[in-house]
Amino acid sequence: MPIRFESDYVEGAHPKILQKLVDTNFEQCAGYSTDEHSARAREYIKALCGGRDVDVHFLVGGTQTNLTVICAALRPHQGVISADTGHINCHETGAIEATGHKVLPIPSTDGKIYAPDVRRMVENHLNDPDFEHIVQPGMVYISNPTENGTVYSKAELTAISAVCREYGLFLFADGARLGYALRARDNDVTIADLAELCDCFYIGGTKMGALFGEAVVISAPVLKKDFRYIIKQRGGMLAKGRLLGVQFEAFFEDNLYYEIADHALKLAMMIKDVFARTGHGFYYDSPTNQQFPILTEAEAEELGRDFVFCPWGRLEDGRLCVRFCTSWATSEENVQKLVKAVEVMAQKQ
Amino acid sequence: MPIRFESDYVEGAHPKILQKLVDTNFEQCAGYSTDEHSARAREYIKALCGGRDVDVHFLVGGTQTNLTVICAALRPHQGVISADTGHINCHETGAIEATGHKVLPIPSTDGKIYAPDVRRMVENHLNDPDFEHIVQPGMVYISNPTENGTVYSKAELTAISAVCREYGLFLFADGARLGYALRARDNDVTIADLAELCDCFYIGGTKMGALFGEAVVISAPVLKKDFRYIIKQRGGMLAKGRLLGVQFEAFFEDNLYYEIADHALKLAMMIKDVFARTGHGFYYDSPTNQQFPILTEAEAEELGRDFVFCPWGRLEDGRLCVRFCTSWATSEENVQKLVKAVEVMAQKQ
Amino acid sequence: MPIRFESDYVEGAHPKILQKLVDTNFEQCAGYSTDEHSARAREYIKALCGGRDVDVHFLVGGTQTNLTVICAALRPHQGVISADTGHINCHETGAIEATGHKVLPIPSTDGKIYAPDVRRMVENHLNDPDFEHIVQPGMVYISNPTENGTVYSKAELTAISAVCREYGLFLFADGARLGYALRARDNDVTIADLAELCDCFYIGGTKMGALFGEAVVISAPVLKKDFRYIIKQRGGMLAKGRLLGVQFEAFFEDNLYYEIADHALKLAMMIKDVFARTGHGFYYDSPTNQQFPILTEAEAEELGRDFVFCPWGRLEDGRLCVRFCTSWATSEENVQKLVKAVEVMAQKQ
Amino acid sequence: MPIRFESDYVEGAHPKILQKLVDTNFEQCAGYSTDEHSARAREYIKALCGGRDVDVHFLVGGTQTNLTVICAALRPHQGVISADTGHINCHETGAIEATGHKVLPIPSTDGKIYAPDVRRMVENHLNDPDFEHIVQPGMVYISNPTENGTVYSKAELTAISAVCREYGLFLFADGARLGYALRARDNDVTIADLAELCDCFYIGGTKMGALFGEAVVISAPVLKKDFRYIIKQRGGMLAKGRLLGVQFEAFFEDNLYYEIADHALKLAMMIKDVFARTGHGFYYDSPTNQQFPILTEAEAEELGRDFVFCPWGRLEDGRLCVRFCTSWATSEENVQKLVKAVEVMAQKQ
Repeated sequence: MPIRFESDYVEGAHPKILQKLVDTNFEQCAGYSTDEHSARAREYIKALCGGRDVDVHFLVGGTQTNLTVICAALRPHQGVISADTGHINCHETGAIEATGHKVLPIPSTDGKIYAPDVRRMVENHLNDPDFEHIVQPGMVYISNPTENGTVYSKAELTAISAVCREYGLFLFADGARLGYALRARDNDVTIADLAELCDCFYIGGTKMGALFGEAVVISAPVLKKDFRYIIKQRGGMLAKGRLLGVQFEAFFEDNLYYEIADHALKLAMMIKDVFARTGHGFYYDSPTNQQFPILTEAEAEELGRDFVFCPWGRLEDGRLCVRFCTSWATSEENVQKLVKAVEVMAQKQ
Repeated sequence: MPIRFESDYVEGAHPKILQKLVDTNFEQCAGYSTDEHSARAREYIKALCGGRDVDVHFLVGGTQTNLTVICAALRPHQGVISADTGHINCHETGAIEATGHKVLPIPSTDGKIYAPDVRRMVENHLNDPDFEHIVQPGMVYISNPTENGTVYSKAELTAISAVCREYGLFLFADGARLGYALRARDNDVTIADLAELCDCFYIGGTKMGALFGEAVVISAPVLKKDFRYIIKQRGGMLAKGRLLGVQFEAFFEDNLYYEIADHALKLAMMIKDVFARTGHGFYYDSPTNQQFPILTEAEAEELGRDFVFCPWGRLEDGRLCVRFCTSWATSEENVQKLVKAVEVMAQKQ
Repeated sequence: MPIRFESDYVEGAHPKILQKLVDTNFEQCAGYSTDEHSARAREYIKALCGGRDVDVHFLVGGTQTNLTVICAALRPHQGVISADTGHINCHETGAIEATGHKVLPIPSTDGKIYAPDVRRMVENHLNDPDFEHIVQPGMVYISNPTENGTVYSKAELTAISAVCREYGLFLFADGARLGYALRARDNDVTIADLAELCDCFYIGGTKMGALFGEAVVISAPVLKKDFRYIIKQRGGMLAKGRLLGVQFEAFFEDNLYYEIADHALKLAMMIKDVFARTGHGFYYDSPTNQQFPILTEAEAEELGRDFVFCPWGRLEDGRLCVRFCTSWATSEENVQKLVKAVEVMAQKQ
Repeated sequence: MPIRFESDYVEGAHPKILQKLVDTNFEQCAGYSTDEHSARAREYIKALCGGRDVDVHFLVGGTQTNLTVICAALRPHQGVISADTGHINCHETGAIEATGHKVLPIPSTDGKIYAPDVRRMVENHLNDPDFEHIVQPGMVYISNPTENGTVYSKAELTAISAVCREYGLFLFADGARLGYALRARDNDVTIADLAELCDCFYIGGTKMGALFGEAVVISAPVLKKDFRYIIKQRGGMLAKGRLLGVQFEAFFEDNLYYEIADHALKLAMMIKDVFARTGHGFYYDSPTNQQFPILTEAEAEELGRDFVFCPWGRLEDGRLCVRFCTSWATSEENVQKLVKAVEVMAQKQ
């Protein structure tokens, strides 16, 4: 059996999370996330937000979360600015458009967008004599880490946030893999910073070791209002909401969320190092749990015999970009096998 | 602590289901329900459909399933016929309208709709000189059991199905609590019948003892096409789709689904019996796991000290209708306590 | 050729309106209702609103206007309360649902809804323990005159408006035939009252003698914001917006709007009188330009030889309700022919 | 007063069209485009389609037409391919997304898209391992002439049509200014060709000399079904539909449509010639009634004193691209004044 590195959701849940679901299984709880586990999980997350007055909601998955937040925030004529590589623009089968709103793409090479790009798009709109015939930017969507594994600095986030506030746009951060950003080398952004700088962000669970689940944190008062109605309407209100509460309790009652991130990051850096040491380039320079080395076709074929990884793109010279992911479940032993295989492959050349 | 009978989702999952999730936790599986557990669960369900050529998909919850199926089936100008008491008309925060389609309600007292009502609505539309100014019925939605606990007979379903086929409407059955209908006393409908008579139906998991999950069965070829795109777009595509596969495997590899239903139904009939024996009427005559006795305010208050149940409505004479639910997790011991309490209360009067 | 009374849009436009379109045809005007005719028409309408700070927009037709206003006002989880006979509930092919919002019907026999009905619906929602699972009322839609020809009194409107303000709902009045209400016998409502009591209403043109066009008046500041974007998005922004401006200029520069109403009402009352005198009942007691006498099948057939009218419904005893309309174009001569025919028919019996 | 060339909708309607509206004003006609004028106009258009079995509908404006056709054709997970400069992508305030569908842009410099681009986009989608996570192309939208004034050749259209049929995509041509394409020098495309090669196209009226109105021609049987319901739902069903019928009757009973085009094209070529003769470049090489010369800021300012034209963009060297339009209403005298002014300006340099 090949060893699978193609994504960070090939296994179930971290054993501590699963154990907590087992331990609480027979408790009788109120439905729809009004239970005590959800309440405690909310308190942990609010504490991480430094006492800011935020609302916390639990949803099942990322696309669901993105579409729910975005449709809750925008008026009909507004769209959401995103990197052209953003998940909402590329990989959600038009979920945002299905709620009636255009995604306004900004070209990006590293998966990030920058404050001046946002400003330019907003000002172009305002200065267009036909502005009423053009979708009005109403929100900025970013991912941290991005779909390319890259991470925003606090200065970059602060600059985007300032533009959004200047022009009255919401700022929303997709944190499907947030833990890997928070614990990345050189990262200077905290959950409290996100609560301060964004109007809404989410703390990903699915790709961080939960069975499933995303914790949405809302700072903007206008977006807090009636948000649960919209969760329900869009199919995201889990009857046994306790399942989400229990999992985020497990993440944050004892630092498990950060331990998982640290584990995955350590192994990701081992993978990055071996490809770098053996002279491979990278499609994106990622400090997080997704690594994007560039391989020749022959290398990809050779490594593909024992390892599963994800095709990501093709360079003009014919070489391939591929993705390796690590997670809570990745074992150091398996990574060592990969390291060895890359080294052996390099020596043959 | 009071004993909770207010819904069938106050506990987690049946222990056999949870154990199977634990046992398979470290398996490495492909994502998005393309894994082997999902494949096996599909085969079990197809077998129950008597070999009919159906597609089976797994979604997380009921509202999500309803909105996904309905928006996949209808053209923009079409609406979906439902009992006015139907879940999609009352308790999904307008999820169907949010996909652009009107719910066309038929007044109902027992939660069911009947073939002549459907025929009348369709013919009224066809015969209206302004028919193009009126929403065109494109689908019939029923629930089995209904929101009121009642169950369709095979003859009733056959008659509705015949009208739908005569006029080219889809027939969709919401089976959020399907097991309780299938095993109800006097029921004569099977899963194979549903696959034959409906264009689409779903086998509920959440309220039948799963952590979560619903299995959608599609018979109509035109509705099969590209259905996974629409699951993804509406936020119902679970990254770790194996979780759904594993749970439905557990339900159907060994008859667990029916055992759970039988357990809950036995206890529900004990509750029904004690209320009947003590001279209470019922708001609906339910043969399934939801029971709707009528209580005086004083009775409701007295029982409410030791038991949690659900307010359901108020009669004109001031008496209350309430709901008691049983499930896999309801213990006979707790039901005996309720039986005793009702008897004691009756003797005092 | 039979004489047509089946609707108030069987002819083109009032000659004064058409002449003004001819007279201004070669003027070069800015597009999209930013021209001087539209500006003047706006000023006339603002003056009728008694100097209130309203915005005035011009759209082409009624369904377009209703869907544009309603989708501009509501958040995703909100619905619009309407009489079950309301145009948006019955005769717009689900246009409101197509924008994502449920119409929340209140049963009505005369086409009107009353403040206590609205209050009951809103309070039922607020008091429901599952309120988040139910569409939130966000707006009240009324028609004046109603689809049944009836008219609201100032006291009735004031009471509805008070409930709306108490609970934070928008109040929107569809005035497709507004002129006929404003000039009806016993009417005590003015355009200025509507501007005061409603958040939005419209002054119908199409059914009042324009080629087409409706003038939307917005009082609520939050609904004014960016309204032109939404007109454009929903296909209601006319390139040659001057056409709308010119027509409403013609309506209001010289009281034409009221003259047309007075003419049509006078003839409608002649029709009402002859049916009353000859012992016919009425399905609705309408003081406006639509009249709904009840005829036997034989009567309907006899009158149908020389006159076109509109079938409206059938009583349980088999008699028919039909609709006769008058307009700017109805001639007294033709009405006299109808009066005579009804009298002759009555004498034969 | 400056002479206005900024668009082709600054005046009302061609006198022959207006006269026909006057002449038919008192006719009593059935509503909603079921009248005899509409019937005759349909016959004229069907004849131009060479007897193909097409349906013809009349709508009021371009955005309305685009959104109605596109939402009628696509299933929820499908999007519409368009040049990035396409009207639906840029200038309709997200009207298509508001119906739930993503616009899939292809970069374009001349406003056109080409068959190989379409094929590449479709095949990329089919070959993507995550294809279900990506919007499925369901339709190709083109404009002829394009927003940049350019025109498709029959060979180009045939090639796009072939790709669409190979992959099961609808082909829809926006003909808001169709007449100017049909009569452009070197054009080899006829209305019959469009009926053959497209599934749907429309013959623009608003920008061709009507007060308003667009004639939609549908060839694809599946798109014909129930189309009037969707027109009504989206607010495009005109009560006095005769107005549209009368105008298109006027266009086609006597070749007026082509006469108008020829007039405007002759004057547009005079404008093109003078700018070319005086050494100006063009932003797009347009053979139709929109001309896009490049001016220095000083030139734009000088010409702007006596003429109104439309700012269109700015080159990197600071020069401006502007748009001049001609129409049925443009007089040769006014064009001569412009020609003279450009010549004088050139001589001064």
